[in-house]
Amino acid sequence: MSSIGGGTPIPTLKTGRAHPHPEPLSGSLFSAAELMPGDRHVVMLDQRLLPRIERYEIFSRVEQVADAISTMKVRGAPAIGIAAAYGLVLAAGFIEGSRERFLESMQTADKLLRRTRPTAVNLAWALDRMARTVARIAGEAPIQRVLALGAEARAIHSEDVAACRAMGALGAANVRDGATVLTHCNAGALATGGYGTALGVIRAARDAGKKIRVLSAETRPLLQGARLTAWELHKDGIQVETITDSMVASFMARGLIDQVIVGADRVARNGDVANKIGTYGVACLAQLHGIPFDVAAPWSTVDLACPSGADIPIEQRGEREVSHVSIGESEVQIMPDGVRAHNPSFDVTPFRLIRALYTERGTASPLTAETLARLAPSLP
Amino acid sequence: MSSIGGGTPIPTLKTGRAHPHPEPLSGSLFSAAELMPGDRHVVMLDQRLLPRIERYEIFSRVEQVADAISTMKVRGAPAIGIAAAYGLVLAAGFIEGSRERFLESMQTADKLLRRTRPTAVNLAWALDRMARTVARIAGEAPIQRVLALGAEARAIHSEDVAACRAMGALGAANVRDGATVLTHCNAGALATGGYGTALGVIRAARDAGKKIRVLSAETRPLLQGARLTAWELHKDGIQVETITDSMVASFMARGLIDQVIVGADRVARNGDVANKIGTYGVACLAQLHGIPFDVAAPWSTVDLACPSGADIPIEQRGEREVSHVSIGESEVQIMPDGVRAHNPSFDVTPFRLIRALYTERGTASPLTAETLARLAPSLP
Repeated sequence: MSSIGGGTPIPTLKTGRAHPHPEPLSGSLFSAAELMPGDRHVVMLDQRLLPRIERYEIFSRVEQVADAISTMKVRGAPAIGIAAAYGLVLAAGFIEGSRERFLESMQTADKLLRRTRPTAVNLAWALDRMARTVARIAGEAPIQRVLALGAEARAIHSEDVAACRAMGALGAANVRDGATVLTHCNAGALATGGYGTALGVIRAARDAGKKIRVLSAETRPLLQGARLTAWELHKDGIQVETITDSMVASFMARGLIDQVIVGADRVARNGDVANKIGTYGVACLAQLHGIPFDVAAPWSTVDLACPSGADIPIEQRGEREVSHVSIGESEVQIMPDGVRAHNPSFDVTPFRLIRALYTERGTASPLTAETLARLAPSLP
Repeated sequence: MSSIGGGTPIPTLKTGRAHPHPEPLSGSLFSAAELMPGDRHVVMLDQRLLPRIERYEIFSRVEQVADAISTMKVRGAPAIGIAAAYGLVLAAGFIEGSRERFLESMQTADKLLRRTRPTAVNLAWALDRMARTVARIAGEAPIQRVLALGAEARAIHSEDVAACRAMGALGAANVRDGATVLTHCNAGALATGGYGTALGVIRAARDAGKKIRVLSAETRPLLQGARLTAWELHKDGIQVETITDSMVASFMARGLIDQVIVGADRVARNGDVANKIGTYGVACLAQLHGIPFDVAAPWSTVDLACPSGADIPIEQRGEREVSHVSIGESEVQIMPDGVRAHNPSFDVTPFRLIRALYTERGTASPLTAETLARLAPSLP
């Protein structure tokens, strides 16, 4: 693949200001992705190496960002939207010349990022929003274009953190002091701009003085629950214990789970929710055992153009994620050669199984097309 | 721990007969455990190393057999019963002297084996049956005691294979030609004397000319589905594909699973079934999606002295089985240090969720205390 823009970055603006080590927008000691001062580099935590290795990589090209999204160095619906927005800023940093040349190259970068992963709508949402800025500033000088796109991408990031805090406060009201909360996958600070969606609700409950215990379902195949949710909650001093996905039903039957909170990769117009594979099974089991099942997601996850869960594209990933357990240099092959594995990365939970959806625009409960529509911004 | 019996084996009987390489009682190219000719050695497949390494170990001491059961080199309810019976034969091979000395040492060996694993009742069942032979032959010469116990242990093994074939034929009648069958864990030749319980039903359906496709749920934490079920069915030419435990619900919702068959570690008098952790969740999801859920198990798994599933002891195993994925020399740590993991090894599926129990004594369907009692041998 040829690089987008030229091989040489356009010069940075000399402002005379020093660039101190910035406060990360995540508001935390760690962050999935941050745009560095100067708008020419993105620093990203390689989440594939967690929990043993906390390694940050610095990217200067949009191709690296696209690769990081495809290979899941960065993952989580809001976080990949933010990463993609930052990717476009990096692309702009290599594009000199005319309005037309800029628009064409930015379109190429957009396509590259857009095709990395199909299910989370936040990716398309962030790219659409950046595209509006691209169109608006295409006639400006190259350096001004970079600055404008950097500002927009940082706004996407900051607004996501604010959204997490807002939905966290709403969700926390429905979390009982002393509750044991099950979560699946990682819908935490690592999956968002910071603070987290489902884990934002946990953090907000904790910040409101409630004692919360989290059971993290390990979430095969990529073990985001065991690796990432356990890592970030433990780091944050929130009590977390891990169970395998196969233990969820037994824990529910024994009365050891009070409620379930998960994130989302896309919410359809009727309230159906696509989320990490395994979520639907947990929702079925929650209903069967009379346990409330809630979803937390920013409005950027809501896709009103998508009528129902059946219309959400489900990503199929490689068999090797199932046949091998790999973290960094360590790898175990767990299946015999010659046997096939399936790897749908998401499933769809029908709205009927969901008690409440928490967003920064309010709570939809019960979650239906009507309660969801009530939260939508009014048309211009 | 001091050895049971002396450090020197009693001499073997010189029969003048040659011991050709024996036909394994498993009736297959592989076997979980076999007593070798001469009754002084047990050969056992180290199932912890599968699927990449097929390594047989030869044990001469009951302590080694007990260790193999605890550490799950051999696993599967019927197979650990057979292994324990063979362990007692090895113990007898070291016990010289009087009836009293023999009974005392055999009691010690019995206790050592009995405490290895608590949930599968086949272990206690096989040891109880061997204890009756021990009592009967305690007054005989040491070499005769070994031969009598060897014969009894081999009978337990052969009868288990015959039971698997009998229940297989019964279960196969309920498997449609062309069906996709989900199974959880490994209830195959590796878990039994040979042929398998749940996988015996699959094999019998195949042997009856039906085309069967198996989905093997990987079965975390120890991955018996991914490692063992996939290995033995693939070796046997039966179409098998692996899914993670978290994919079961989604596959059911999409109509990709026609029926479920699993084995059992203990069946209580009311029909409740203890089986590998995760089974209960699969049974819940099967009922919710209108998919038949069947259990296959030899009568040695039925514990009429146990009123209900609530009375079945559930083994809790070490956290490391959850926090690390280990096969042989390969190991990956999937959780951060300092986070706790839970590891109940079994769960209980209420009889109401089970369409049929297949045993060598007949089928109990629907599975209730009454249909189960009808299969029980009449009291003497």
